[in-house]
Amino acid sequence: MSNPFYMQRAIQLARQGQYSTRPNPNVGCVIVKDDQIVGEGFHPQAGQPHAEVFALKQAGEQARGATAYVTLEPCAHYGRTPPCANALVEAGVSHVVMASLDPNPLVAGKGQVILHAAGIDTTVGMLEAEARALNKGFLQVMAGGRPYVRLKMAASLDGRTAMASGESKWITGEAARLDVQHWRALSGAVITGINTVLADDPGLNVRQLSSGFPIEKVEQPLRVVLDRQSRFPMQAQLLQHPDQLLLIGTQPDVVPAIEHWPDMALAQLLNELKNQKQIYEVLIEAGPTLASEFLRQGLVDELIVYLAPTLLGCEARAMFNLSLSEMSEQYRLQLQEVAQVGQDVRLILTPAAH
Amino acid sequence: MSNPFYMQRAIQLARQGQYSTRPNPNVGCVIVKDDQIVGEGFHPQAGQPHAEVFALKQAGEQARGATAYVTLEPCAHYGRTPPCANALVEAGVSHVVMASLDPNPLVAGKGQVILHAAGIDTTVGMLEAEARALNKGFLQVMAGGRPYVRLKMAASLDGRTAMASGESKWITGEAARLDVQHWRALSGAVITGINTVLADDPGLNVRQLSSGFPIEKVEQPLRVVLDRQSRFPMQAQLLQHPDQLLLIGTQPDVVPAIEHWPDMALAQLLNELKNQKQIYEVLIEAGPTLASEFLRQGLVDELIVYLAPTLLGCEARAMFNLSLSEMSEQYRLQLQEVAQVGQDVRLILTPAAH
Repeated sequence: MSNPFYMQRAIQLARQGQYSTRPNPNVGCVIVKDDQIVGEGFHPQAGQPHAEVFALKQAGEQARGATAYVTLEPCAHYGRTPPCANALVEAGVSHVVMASLDPNPLVAGKGQVILHAAGIDTTVGMLEAEARALNKGFLQVMAGGRPYVRLKMAASLDGRTAMASGESKWITGEAARLDVQHWRALSGAVITGINTVLADDPGLNVRQLSSGFPIEKVEQPLRVVLDRQSRFPMQAQLLQHPDQLLLIGTQPDVVPAIEHWPDMALAQLLNELKNQKQIYEVLIEAGPTLASEFLRQGLVDELIVYLAPTLLGCEARAMFNLSLSEMSEQYRLQLQEVAQVGQDVRLILTPAAH
Repeated sequence: MSNPFYMQRAIQLARQGQYSTRPNPNVGCVIVKDDQIVGEGFHPQAGQPHAEVFALKQAGEQARGATAYVTLEPCAHYGRTPPCANALVEAGVSHVVMASLDPNPLVAGKGQVILHAAGIDTTVGMLEAEARALNKGFLQVMAGGRPYVRLKMAASLDGRTAMASGESKWITGEAARLDVQHWRALSGAVITGINTVLADDPGLNVRQLSSGFPIEKVEQPLRVVLDRQSRFPMQAQLLQHPDQLLLIGTQPDVVPAIEHWPDMALAQLLNELKNQKQIYEVLIEAGPTLASEFLRQGLVDELIVYLAPTLLGCEARAMFNLSLSEMSEQYRLQLQEVAQVGQDVRLILTPAAH
């Protein structure tokens, strides 16, 4: 006897931590007794208790014989907190419904084993796709992959990002620019190229969220600039937050007291961000050249494209610097979602299998 | 006491004639007595009775004291049928609700006057915008304007219509290509350029409609080809329906027994189609050059753009041959609607005031 309504609620709770739990996943938990919610919780931030702990605390004695809905398999290891699987056993719940198992194949199922051993019924897979969408990067990395990469582009309806002269402010409207902040806030790092820094002097930080979520609770993404010819300008707005700035390829003496890494391949950069910074989701906000390079190397998991209802004409700058001569070389995508954002259109796409 | 629900129903009825009433407008009528629909009708085809006649016939004696909902002011003149305003008076309805008045300023209100004189209450303006959307071309022409022009384009997400070589089949998917047939079926004429005929050999007729509407009841649009250098090919698919083909600029001896007009400006062509053919809605299905020419001359009322989730790259052919150098010259549009059609996206836009 389990009800997807409660898992839906657990997913909703988990989402409340979407901007602040990094590198931990977003997890939500709901405890249900006699078709009544008696406890709710979500993981708010790394170092703070897990979702199950909050929910069990609220449920108190009512957890005995109850059903627990969790968006991810309860942990089975002693970390900063004791294992949540044990906490559920101790609280006396009789049934645990999980949206998905732990993504790390080496530990997947261990939480479930503890529950089983204690005679607790378990169900796995309820609203799994929706729950997994909360933690795309975490899941991909724990399964042995590289960080989840979103590529954001803004263009005119005829696929142009700037006039031939470089003039480009603003193509999309305010609502679309505000919407971009959501993707930044989800990301452990925002990657851009030196040409974008020189042309637009962007801040690339999260300044406002359309949901009204308090900015001070957002963990700001690391800003990563690819600067192979060491042209980083000392007056860049990015230098206002030097602790969140990582320069790749810049000569360290050009911009002192900032974190520097040597130039490296894009795939390696993603791996280093994962290994050295525990960054599992990355947003690319770059010009056509760097954006196309990520695409060409097969490093993009998702494209987020804002199209403005305007025509910039055939001499304006192309959205992607992909040089293709036959239809068979086209870069096919899968449309996942289309929505109107202010006066603009937002498309979310994934690369199609080639 | 009038209820928009019934006008909504009248609009729905009117739409049943959308592919077959040309050059007449689409009109629907609902007769309501004691909050019950007692009669319904729509105008199915030029030469057949008007919507009010069908609805009154079905209502019979129950029309006495009833309310009639009509999507357009009842006619006041003797044409192929007697005036509908008189028919409503004779039937004894007590209230007539109209979505909008007759668009021709010289006759607007005359139907209403007849009703008033007979002591019938009238209401004007219920769901007016929605009802007017049924007859965009008719209304624009009756108000003294030129035909309503829709420009259809299909392109990749990066705004390209073909590879540099000209290779282009197929960018959009089947669902989008089927959707185009709806716009053709709404149109009195489809205009294309000789380059499109030479490159794609299109039929430009209505072959299937996603609604399942029977094709034999569709009035096929006139196909108009701009052929200034008289290059029309004798093996063109368009010659399979010579009675529906109008060539502009082709030397008559090149393609005999087809209707020929001399070369003329685009605005004049639209006017001639209106004056000589009673064509009030036109669809442009052309390549970037002709499409851009209509745009540049301010002759487009609506753009219907299908974008396929694919990238053709920066060397592929541009969607519009507009040569602009500053952002201030951009061609701003207003987004009216966005929808997913199969795997593609359809945007409907109108030119913004400049």
